Amino acid sequence: MTVSPFDHPLLSGLLGDEEAARHFSVEADIAAMLSFERGLAEAEAECGVISREAGAAIVKALVSFRPDTAKLRSGVAKDGVVVPELVRQLTAAVGEPHGEFVHFGATSQDVIDSSLVLRLRQAVEHIGLLLSENIVRLANLEQEFGGRALMAMTRMQPAIPIRAGDRIASWRAPLKRHQQRLNEQSGRLFVVQFGGAAGTLEKLGDKAPAVRAAFAARLGLGDAPQWHSQRDALAEFAGWLSLTTGSLGKFGQDIALMAQASTDIKLSDSGGSSAMPHKQNPVKAEALVALARFNAVQLAGMHQALVHEQERSGAAWTLEWLILPQMVVATAAALRLAAELAAQIESLGH
Amino acid sequence: MTVSPFDHPLLSGLLGDEEAARHFSVEADIAAMLSFERGLAEAEAECGVISREAGAAIVKALVSFRPDTAKLRSGVAKDGVVVPELVRQLTAAVGEPHGEFVHFGATSQDVIDSSLVLRLRQAVEHIGLLLSENIVRLANLEQEFGGRALMAMTRMQPAIPIRAGDRIASWRAPLKRHQQRLNEQSGRLFVVQFGGAAGTLEKLGDKAPAVRAAFAARLGLGDAPQWHSQRDALAEFAGWLSLTTGSLGKFGQDIALMAQASTDIKLSDSGGSSAMPHKQNPVKAEALVALARFNAVQLAGMHQALVHEQERSGAAWTLEWLILPQMVVATAAALRLAAELAAQIESLGH
Amino acid sequence: MTVSPFDHPLLSGLLGDEEAARHFSVEADIAAMLSFERGLAEAEAECGVISREAGAAIVKALVSFRPDTAKLRSGVAKDGVVVPELVRQLTAAVGEPHGEFVHFGATSQDVIDSSLVLRLRQAVEHIGLLLSENIVRLANLEQEFGGRALMAMTRMQPAIPIRAGDRIASWRAPLKRHQQRLNEQSGRLFVVQFGGAAGTLEKLGDKAPAVRAAFAARLGLGDAPQWHSQRDALAEFAGWLSLTTGSLGKFGQDIALMAQASTDIKLSDSGGSSAMPHKQNPVKAEALVALARFNAVQLAGMHQALVHEQERSGAAWTLEWLILPQMVVATAAALRLAAELAAQIESLGH
Amino acid sequence: MTVSPFDHPLLSGLLGDEEAARHFSVEADIAAMLSFERGLAEAEAECGVISREAGAAIVKALVSFRPDTAKLRSGVAKDGVVVPELVRQLTAAVGEPHGEFVHFGATSQDVIDSSLVLRLRQAVEHIGLLLSENIVRLANLEQEFGGRALMAMTRMQPAIPIRAGDRIASWRAPLKRHQQRLNEQSGRLFVVQFGGAAGTLEKLGDKAPAVRAAFAARLGLGDAPQWHSQRDALAEFAGWLSLTTGSLGKFGQDIALMAQASTDIKLSDSGGSSAMPHKQNPVKAEALVALARFNAVQLAGMHQALVHEQERSGAAWTLEWLILPQMVVATAAALRLAAELAAQIESLGH
Repeated sequence: MTVSPFDHPLLSGLLGDEEAARHFSVEADIAAMLSFERGLAEAEAECGVISREAGAAIVKALVSFRPDTAKLRSGVAKDGVVVPELVRQLTAAVGEPHGEFVHFGATSQDVIDSSLVLRLRQAVEHIGLLLSENIVRLANLEQEFGGRALMAMTRMQPAIPIRAGDRIASWRAPLKRHQQRLNEQSGRLFVVQFGGAAGTLEKLGDKAPAVRAAFAARLGLGDAPQWHSQRDALAEFAGWLSLTTGSLGKFGQDIALMAQASTDIKLSDSGGSSAMPHKQNPVKAEALVALARFNAVQLAGMHQALVHEQERSGAAWTLEWLILPQMVVATAAALRLAAELAAQIESLGH
Repeated sequence: MTVSPFDHPLLSGLLGDEEAARHFSVEADIAAMLSFERGLAEAEAECGVISREAGAAIVKALVSFRPDTAKLRSGVAKDGVVVPELVRQLTAAVGEPHGEFVHFGATSQDVIDSSLVLRLRQAVEHIGLLLSENIVRLANLEQEFGGRALMAMTRMQPAIPIRAGDRIASWRAPLKRHQQRLNEQSGRLFVVQFGGAAGTLEKLGDKAPAVRAAFAARLGLGDAPQWHSQRDALAEFAGWLSLTTGSLGKFGQDIALMAQASTDIKLSDSGGSSAMPHKQNPVKAEALVALARFNAVQLAGMHQALVHEQERSGAAWTLEWLILPQMVVATAAALRLAAELAAQIESLGH
Repeated sequence: MTVSPFDHPLLSGLLGDEEAARHFSVEADIAAMLSFERGLAEAEAECGVISREAGAAIVKALVSFRPDTAKLRSGVAKDGVVVPELVRQLTAAVGEPHGEFVHFGATSQDVIDSSLVLRLRQAVEHIGLLLSENIVRLANLEQEFGGRALMAMTRMQPAIPIRAGDRIASWRAPLKRHQQRLNEQSGRLFVVQFGGAAGTLEKLGDKAPAVRAAFAARLGLGDAPQWHSQRDALAEFAGWLSLTTGSLGKFGQDIALMAQASTDIKLSDSGGSSAMPHKQNPVKAEALVALARFNAVQLAGMHQALVHEQERSGAAWTLEWLILPQMVVATAAALRLAAELAAQIESLGH
Repeated sequence: MTVSPFDHPLLSGLLGDEEAARHFSVEADIAAMLSFERGLAEAEAECGVISREAGAAIVKALVSFRPDTAKLRSGVAKDGVVVPELVRQLTAAVGEPHGEFVHFGATSQDVIDSSLVLRLRQAVEHIGLLLSENIVRLANLEQEFGGRALMAMTRMQPAIPIRAGDRIASWRAPLKRHQQRLNEQSGRLFVVQFGGAAGTLEKLGDKAPAVRAAFAARLGLGDAPQWHSQRDALAEFAGWLSLTTGSLGKFGQDIALMAQASTDIKLSDSGGSSAMPHKQNPVKAEALVALARFNAVQLAGMHQALVHEQERSGAAWTLEWLILPQMVVATAAALRLAAELAAQIESLGH
């Protein structure tokens, strides 16, 4: 099934990004959840919460563990989250006497949220590289064409002459600020979620802080108090994604407008039409506008999900699942398209 | 890749709907586009725009035609739409001398939009059945529990006693209005899109009206002037989808609130927790709230896409693709979940 | 205070509409609420729920009643709604022995929602006239310039020649459908809200249906069961508003694009610049795009408010107040601007 | 006119904030624009772009200058922005021979955007104080009630006992992160906008950098290259506003849920009902949810406005005006309400 263009075998050729989407495959999801269970067992064994033997048994079982995904699917349908069934299967795989120490002290949300953060970190690495590539490509355009003349357009009317470099700078400067913003928020975003049933790690007693720190270290995430009902870091990150696609949408809109008359800009290898073979459509530029507007829309949903009631809101949490992965892939796709579009520019200005 | 939960092998067990999603598979999409090309050839042959032989050759070729989907994917990446490459392949399959009459007088948007409408019509049939099922189930609840007492809650505070039937009526009445609304808009929605390169069917001369009428009849759609840059029927339909999920979201929210204390309502077979085996989570009720908020968010995007510039906006059109299919599946999923949730109600009121 | 441009003494000159805004003034609001209390007293006296004397005393007191607005303001701050304090004041004004029959059997939401519907009906009359005016103006443009040539633009690229009338038709046709839609939904929208404390009119006993019918007739509204927690008619209407501004936004975007090069269109009396006296900015066209995008955004909020929990949601209801009046005024402003813009067109096509 | 509740004489008692709204009054707007013109004249005289005499004449005229607001209103209606008419009036007030040096080298957008930033800075000071007050109040609650018992609620079901302090921490921790976020973005937000007709300060020649620096210093803003078509700092700030109201919305939702049964929490002085005198409605808590959802919706509009085409987009810019001031006031109102609500808590937990 391919309801979303990001998943669609044909449309994802334009609108998707394989590398970013990879982190939201069911395989990547399960792998990250199993990393969670492994890291947890190791950290708890290390801190003496579970025995060394239990820890080793869990780690060993995980090596060859392959979940029954049909049952996982039914589990989601019933429990609203995959973890209870996954833990059931894993517990059975570990078997007596250590199975009961699987997932010890943790709850579903710990697994899902930490798994999400682990995969976001990987996706962000990819996105960060694409962002840098865009900055470089725009700097190159500036170097190549920056000195040429361009008619400034204000309120869609010819204003006064500027340099092509002035417009290119308006595409590039926000991207550099987005790099800075990503740096600032990384420390808030890439942290472990570990709180147990209601956030208090009540089963770990006074070993809770040590376990959490050791666990976070094993996952390569920052250590922080649980944030299961505080979703601001995710909403902030969604804002960053939409800021980025918004800036690229401006780039796309400008290119599409410049391409109208074909004198301000020359693009290689544009899109064709089924009715008019002579046309050269600025397809990637239009897609940038579409992705910008898409992410702007989605962002509202991530902020609605901030109203996350009490210790866990099934409704608000599920809403995030419906939105955030697509925003990530939309951003990666937009960055990929923008870099390609910049490379298509054969001439800019006069 | 499974970026959207509607496409996700595990999450779609809760949040998806297979029957609705089926209409957005690549297979269904291609099948509908080929129906378009077939119906067009037949209508044009019937009206003498192309020869009977050309029409027959196209229809014959379509019987065994299987597109090269890898090339379709590249085509989308380049052209922003799959049709130019699809028509190229189909033209080759028909071969000389009739190949040139494939897709005659049509443009990409005609194919994509008409294919969408064809599939929406099927999805709506399914959705309509689910809607009726919900109305029946709620009527049954009303019959079974309607006379029991319930404490009305206004502004989240106990108000005065009402009957359970009063609350059930507030779930059912909007659904009946949604049936009426759907009827009203069907005539605007389920119409063919056929305009050619720029909406004027310029290649068909004075035969254009007759061809369009014959074509629409063959597709089983209403005949109407092209609407390629007038997207109001789609945005209106998106509004209908969100009205529907909104009403179901209210139902879900009410159930989740009633389930807090477990005295107003008894639900069979609720969701389990990985940390607290005693819990019975109102998972479907929460999912209804999440889907309602999701569709409410998406609706803004479909309305942004009304600003569809000139004779065809690549940006606004692509934005629709990113949003509408998910809204349809979200609605079907919500209706499925609501019917299941109604069936889970073992007791309501006192 | 003038936080919203619709209320701003300067900005409302462009973005506002005095006639529509008038219905959302505090004076209009209070007047409509007092009409409610008057109609209610009359209907209840007519049906024998309160005595003829009580009815007459209330009606008489209302003639000269002027509320203390400072206290109303404090009342809103405390109660979240103005009605309890308003009823307190009105009860005092009626005095013994009839004061206690003021607002008999009604609740705050009855007053607020019915008052809203009364004023929406008036605003819609105004909007309907503006809509008709736009249709006429576009028909005139079609008559005057429809036969001229225009280069169709698809995906922002020159496509093939069309007639100016083809593009004008794409502006006009949706407006005619919006007229039809408004007709369809009027019967659902313009109905009284009257349910009492929790929707059951429990104080009126078996006279409730007769009172509600008599009351609705006096207000000039349709009679219908209470809909206090069923907000679909309002959300549907919000959708209509955004469909309308969306279609006008397309018109505005098209004009702004045509005005770029100044050969396709000639506009009289456009906007000036503080830096470039030579410029003629298509200000009204741009404002149409802004208002379209504004309403598209707001619509999501009206649909979020469909998740209206239990018998009355303070949160969801308040959200409507923050959004719907602005959508109405945005729509009236857009219709006004579009009619003015159409009148500015001195030449279209070649 | 009072279309927005933030401007409404009655509703702003609950939903508004006078101190924040003050900065969006027409008086504050004009005062800030005149500060711009004064600071510009001073900086340009200082740098020798205009003569000392011209600078002094402009400064002197500004002391007693009172614009004709009726003409300003017509100016907005025609030009889409108030500045051309304001500059016309100010130029006349300065008179010959120095009048022509008013607004020298600047454009409308410089005035509007810098005026906005000046007022946002003041509003943010107020908001920052309210934010600190909330943090203190929540810390006090934590101290007073933190050790009491509370039943954790996950997925709206009783989970396990926690301390009241655990829940209070989930309200307070995000607010502290919001303080940090505001610090991080201040340097990007509170900068002058000064670019002239198309961003190049072409009339200032090589004195442009010095003038801009001197000008920024006089306005008390940071110096930075023009950002007239780069709206990321404003969209980021809008995100911050919505993050803040989102966190407060969670607080409000939690309070409203706790207040259902009246055992977890005791609130003083809640709202009354017109139909049910016994009720104590958690009005401020509900308003927090409404304002959170409102800002979440609006945020999408600010991000749509990132697609700001070319050197100045009338459409995207106007969209910001329709949205940002209301988000600011919504945030101030929410902070005020949250502080009041925290003060209403007489008891929390068991």
